Amino acid sequence: MPKHAQLEYRPMHLAETRKIILWSLAWTFLAVTMAVCGAGPASPGPQADLVAPGIWRFHFGDPEPFTPTHFRSAALDSAGLEKMPASPVLPVDPAKITFYVSGRGCSVQLPMESDESIYGLGLSTKLFDLTESENGRTGRRVFLKPTDSPENDLGESHAPVPFYVSSKGYGVFVDTARFVSFYMGNVAPVQAPAETGGGGVQTSIAELYRARTQRVKTMLVDVPAAKGLDVYVFAGPAMLDAVERYNLFSGGGTLPPLWGLGIHYRGYARYGADESLALAARIRAEHVPCDVWGVEPGWQSKTYSCSFTWNTNQFPDPDGFLRQMRAMGYRMNFWEHAFTHPSSPIYEELKPWSGNYRVWDGLVPDFATPQGREIFLKQNRVALFNRQVEGVKLDECDDQPDSAMPWSFPPASAFPSGLDGEQMHSLFGLLYQQTMLTPYREQGLRTWGLVRNSHALAASLPYVVYSDSYDPKCYVRGVVNEGFSGLLWTPEVRDAGSVEDLYRRLETVMFSADAVINAWFIQNPPWDQVNREKNNHGELMPERAAVTEAVRKLLQLRMSFIPYLYTAFNEYHATGKPPIRALVLDWPEDPKVRKLDDQFMFGDSVLVAPMFAGEDRRTVYLPAGDWYDFWTHAKISGGNSLEVTNGVSQIPLFVKGGTLLPLAEPVEFIKPDTCFEITVNRVGGQPAEFTLYEDDGLTMAYSRSEQNQILLHTDGGQPSVRRSGNYHGPDRFKIAGWKTF
Amino acid sequence: MPKHAQLEYRPMHLAETRKIILWSLAWTFLAVTMAVCGAGPASPGPQADLVAPGIWRFHFGDPEPFTPTHFRSAALDSAGLEKMPASPVLPVDPAKITFYVSGRGCSVQLPMESDESIYGLGLSTKLFDLTESENGRTGRRVFLKPTDSPENDLGESHAPVPFYVSSKGYGVFVDTARFVSFYMGNVAPVQAPAETGGGGVQTSIAELYRARTQRVKTMLVDVPAAKGLDVYVFAGPAMLDAVERYNLFSGGGTLPPLWGLGIHYRGYARYGADESLALAARIRAEHVPCDVWGVEPGWQSKTYSCSFTWNTNQFPDPDGFLRQMRAMGYRMNFWEHAFTHPSSPIYEELKPWSGNYRVWDGLVPDFATPQGREIFLKQNRVALFNRQVEGVKLDECDDQPDSAMPWSFPPASAFPSGLDGEQMHSLFGLLYQQTMLTPYREQGLRTWGLVRNSHALAASLPYVVYSDSYDPKCYVRGVVNEGFSGLLWTPEVRDAGSVEDLYRRLETVMFSADAVINAWFIQNPPWDQVNREKNNHGELMPERAAVTEAVRKLLQLRMSFIPYLYTAFNEYHATGKPPIRALVLDWPEDPKVRKLDDQFMFGDSVLVAPMFAGEDRRTVYLPAGDWYDFWTHAKISGGNSLEVTNGVSQIPLFVKGGTLLPLAEPVEFIKPDTCFEITVNRVGGQPAEFTLYEDDGLTMAYSRSEQNQILLHTDGGQPSVRRSGNYHGPDRFKIAGWKTF
Repeated sequence: MPKHAQLEYRPMHLAETRKIILWSLAWTFLAVTMAVCGAGPASPGPQADLVAPGIWRFHFGDPEPFTPTHFRSAALDSAGLEKMPASPVLPVDPAKITFYVSGRGCSVQLPMESDESIYGLGLSTKLFDLTESENGRTGRRVFLKPTDSPENDLGESHAPVPFYVSSKGYGVFVDTARFVSFYMGNVAPVQAPAETGGGGVQTSIAELYRARTQRVKTMLVDVPAAKGLDVYVFAGPAMLDAVERYNLFSGGGTLPPLWGLGIHYRGYARYGADESLALAARIRAEHVPCDVWGVEPGWQSKTYSCSFTWNTNQFPDPDGFLRQMRAMGYRMNFWEHAFTHPSSPIYEELKPWSGNYRVWDGLVPDFATPQGREIFLKQNRVALFNRQVEGVKLDECDDQPDSAMPWSFPPASAFPSGLDGEQMHSLFGLLYQQTMLTPYREQGLRTWGLVRNSHALAASLPYVVYSDSYDPKCYVRGVVNEGFSGLLWTPEVRDAGSVEDLYRRLETVMFSADAVINAWFIQNPPWDQVNREKNNHGELMPERAAVTEAVRKLLQLRMSFIPYLYTAFNEYHATGKPPIRALVLDWPEDPKVRKLDDQFMFGDSVLVAPMFAGEDRRTVYLPAGDWYDFWTHAKISGGNSLEVTNGVSQIPLFVKGGTLLPLAEPVEFIKPDTCFEITVNRVGGQPAEFTLYEDDGLTMAYSRSEQNQILLHTDGGQPSVRRSGNYHGPDRFKIAGWKTF
Repeated sequence: MPKHAQLEYRPMHLAETRKIILWSLAWTFLAVTMAVCGAGPASPGPQADLVAPGIWRFHFGDPEPFTPTHFRSAALDSAGLEKMPASPVLPVDPAKITFYVSGRGCSVQLPMESDESIYGLGLSTKLFDLTESENGRTGRRVFLKPTDSPENDLGESHAPVPFYVSSKGYGVFVDTARFVSFYMGNVAPVQAPAETGGGGVQTSIAELYRARTQRVKTMLVDVPAAKGLDVYVFAGPAMLDAVERYNLFSGGGTLPPLWGLGIHYRGYARYGADESLALAARIRAEHVPCDVWGVEPGWQSKTYSCSFTWNTNQFPDPDGFLRQMRAMGYRMNFWEHAFTHPSSPIYEELKPWSGNYRVWDGLVPDFATPQGREIFLKQNRVALFNRQVEGVKLDECDDQPDSAMPWSFPPASAFPSGLDGEQMHSLFGLLYQQTMLTPYREQGLRTWGLVRNSHALAASLPYVVYSDSYDPKCYVRGVVNEGFSGLLWTPEVRDAGSVEDLYRRLETVMFSADAVINAWFIQNPPWDQVNREKNNHGELMPERAAVTEAVRKLLQLRMSFIPYLYTAFNEYHATGKPPIRALVLDWPEDPKVRKLDDQFMFGDSVLVAPMFAGEDRRTVYLPAGDWYDFWTHAKISGGNSLEVTNGVSQIPLFVKGGTLLPLAEPVEFIKPDTCFEITVNRVGGQPAEFTLYEDDGLTMAYSRSEQNQILLHTDGGQPSVRRSGNYHGPDRFKIAGWKTF
């Protein structure tokens, strides 16, 4: 481990007050002297240790033992980091960083420039540039608390990640499991020069309390309870570089199994085996693409809290049920949460390895202990993993930090590992994911699942974050934000306000990390009936055949993008580049994308601009360069905004000129030996190379280099395909043809 | 100081985890053994020290130095407490109290009974019985954070007081300046028996997350940061006894100057001396009662933040202005907040005695240091106190704990005293009040003012809490709640939605601790024009003469109650009995008053049931016994609800049978030699005695027993008046006659 930084501060006790005052005066005197004299070397500030190329660590005080780096999901990817350009210069001036510790916790102040924008801090679905408020560039406080209600303007989310990235081309990760607050330039340290405010008498409350813009901006990070902190700084030079470094520091991005990129349908929660099989068969009969079948709570004898034993009234023969579903080609995903019901066979054994408060009468397993993990897994193996289920959905692992009637465990909880309830709430989703990933890793298999809470250094985890909230614009903003924080997000589709709403929602989810249709509270697929009550009364829409046909096409569109998306994920794994990301990461110099929170890049060359029900047009901004409309192939010059009026099921998509876009013949579902028939589209002149990544699509063999790279390129109009690598299984991709857009 | 309790717990370190698990197992074993055997003495639990008759202290761990008891506003009133019945039995079973400390803070668990109701925890205007939620008796979490937005269901308020009182007849005070959370029976410790829940599969989010009622209830008090805690338990036998003990522990209730009970009008913020004088003269000319004139921000050269220097453009001759106002009989109250503008003469001197973050560019004085208090006072003396202003309004001393754009200092702030920002936010209002009270106490004078933030042990402070929020039902709930926590609250009147709304709001404020009409954003009194915009455009209501007449009568009603209210305040001071309080404190055995949050007792014999604009009737519940309608003198049997249809300006008032109700001839304002002409109303048969308290009404001489008691009683219908005591100044009360209701 690198040495500690030179400046170490201690907790302040009453007796030390006078000493601290003297110190403050001394520091002030020093600072004033230096400022007045304008000579001599500046205070060097705390020392930073180089952790990896372009990553520095500041070590302040006495950090807590239980932080995200203590519970790493994967080792830092040093090979990947070595490939990044080293940045010799620390991108933040250490002389402007200060640390303070008190009995309450500790805080760090970092410098900010007045025109600096900040992004990230997890999966907010409401905020984007965190220095913006309704009053302009006033800055704001962002609260990093895990919540089940992400549509808030406090920055609380399903995945509150203490990592942010700056428009100035650097990132900062605060290694803590505390509910941190970040003040984005809206605090006024006494040392900073005074503003020139304090004007006339106001007679309006709104005017009195209006947020004001600071001339000199400071980032304040407020960490409760901790007496010390490691703060990591990630160099650019561009924002995307900083994000990539953070993701490689996290172990690199996750690589889904190929089938994980297909369509994911979750059945009605009250359905037993027979009804599930019948619906699954109908979906096959109607040729609606579907790879993953999700079984909601009904499979368990007790839920809220969970028994992790099968409800044999509903599912009298679990093995038979699974066999029949698999015979139809479905991969199986099972819902659960961690709270363990008294009737579960592991209850008594788990009790000493649980928190000291129950949730819905269930134990809260301490996943920070090997015993807690193993006892919990034991019953999950019996029920699920020994049956080779391909994935799980990990529900209810978030919190309601600001609720008068919270359902989860109190932050004051104690766990045998030594974690308290606040730390556990921050880490609960991470630790739960790690636990449930174990059986797959033991078998060298990949999985793809869902989780309702995540946190820092999560890039390597094969779980996609989802929510109960359902605002379509917020859902899109989640997609736009996910790439800043090493996270994946699905704007899942449930019921809909109208057929148009169904199409628009489906369009967006097709361009997300997990194409989930979550019909947990409707008996029939939403394309049979969008209205929840009617759906559950069996009143299907008269136009359901036409809707099914349109939906089928939309789902097929997703299926055709799978090879392309698989490349984006392989690069996420190898280089840390997020497969889905905000435009500001690709065009950091373009001021027009700084606030663009309703468009995103899907891979390197496709720009997605979702539309919303009730809006027959939208403005799309295309950055500089040539672009091609995906549907019409019309060429559009970038650097401008345009208005689009795409009809339903034709989501506005724009392909970057000078690229190769491989699109596959859609399949209904992906078998172990599925070989995608690919047409390579030449988009614009002089297209750059494109690499497809080929492997078994199922196991971890790719991590042992059992992988091929299929290099597509054109040389003076002449297409060529070069396959190389160590994967020797059946071909997954066949280049069936080339086309010009 | 009493000895520390025997059981001392230590902070848990990682290395101690195993030890703690062993201890937990040992404790569990002990508890199980005892439960199974059903014999032998119970675990004694932590030891409690008797602090005063009926007050015990539990000392846990290593408490923080900066708590409400450290910054007492007044010494415990041991004489008052000695007069209370001693309670030999600790009302909470110590064996059921547990304490836990971790790196995050500490927590205490206290037993609750399943039918127990909890009240208090400060000035919530939204909550009443804190064990209730929209789902019934599920309990709730109450957050004790100071806020400027009390109309929330989290329990945050302008005065978050960590004292609660139980329907089982005891009170609990947690001595901390932290932002505590109380869980009112809605947590499930693993040790408690499991519930029988976990039923069928739900397909509704509302149903999944519905709060559930615990069979075995536990109060969890979650205190961040602290490593120890003093918890005080106050015996009954009744709730009111516990409240009285808490108030006497706080030093006894405050006694206002007599003029403080008159009408308080606050003028338009943009008015200078001339406009203020003109309006003050008009109010006298129209014979609208008014004792106190409030000057809003306009008197200062800078506000937001404050310079504490006169704006000599608006007020060229402060002394002349004050002289003229006083010549009209007004007592003067001046607005300010504590944040000190760079242009203030004390800015540089105050800087080292301020927090390390500015608010609105102003310093935050550290009122926990003698230097901070004295430097701040220095300029306030120059501007205000040397001019003998009678009172101040202390604004903006609360917080926005859950705001994305907080205007006040961050909780991570550091103060020279050693307080951090969180502690300072809890105590800021208290310390500010104490500071601003100093000049009055130096001169042996009483004052009466307003404050927007208060906290624990505040009963002795002569400041009434107010808010910017303006929901009339919440304002009434504030009046109902104030008595649980040693606080006073004014439901101040500003503009109004209609003339009816003006009357209804005025009716309520007339029966509060400070009858404030706060016209800070309207040029003319609201009885000239209730609509804010029209008022400021000089469009007065055509019916303003009639409205003024009705308002005058309402204000006169208040004036007639002053001697009666002065008695209630004298008893607040001597016995701790709140002058204004919820019915549940007087009738703890009556289940029908347990949820009654829209009626209150005003003194011992008057029940007030406010009405609201747009509602032409309301239900009033009268507890058992005879009651008399104040307006019709009709006798009503209690123990029942009745519907009333009182017209505007006749607020429903009911007088308890068997009481004497002294009512005064209203005066326009109270002079130092005002003698109230009193008619004593015999209400019902066999009226109990009533004592009027007479003194100079201005100074602290009453605390040196320079006070008379005027005992009113009837002996077989024969009225008698007996005056005794050591006050020898001019008579303040003259019994002019007796009447039968």
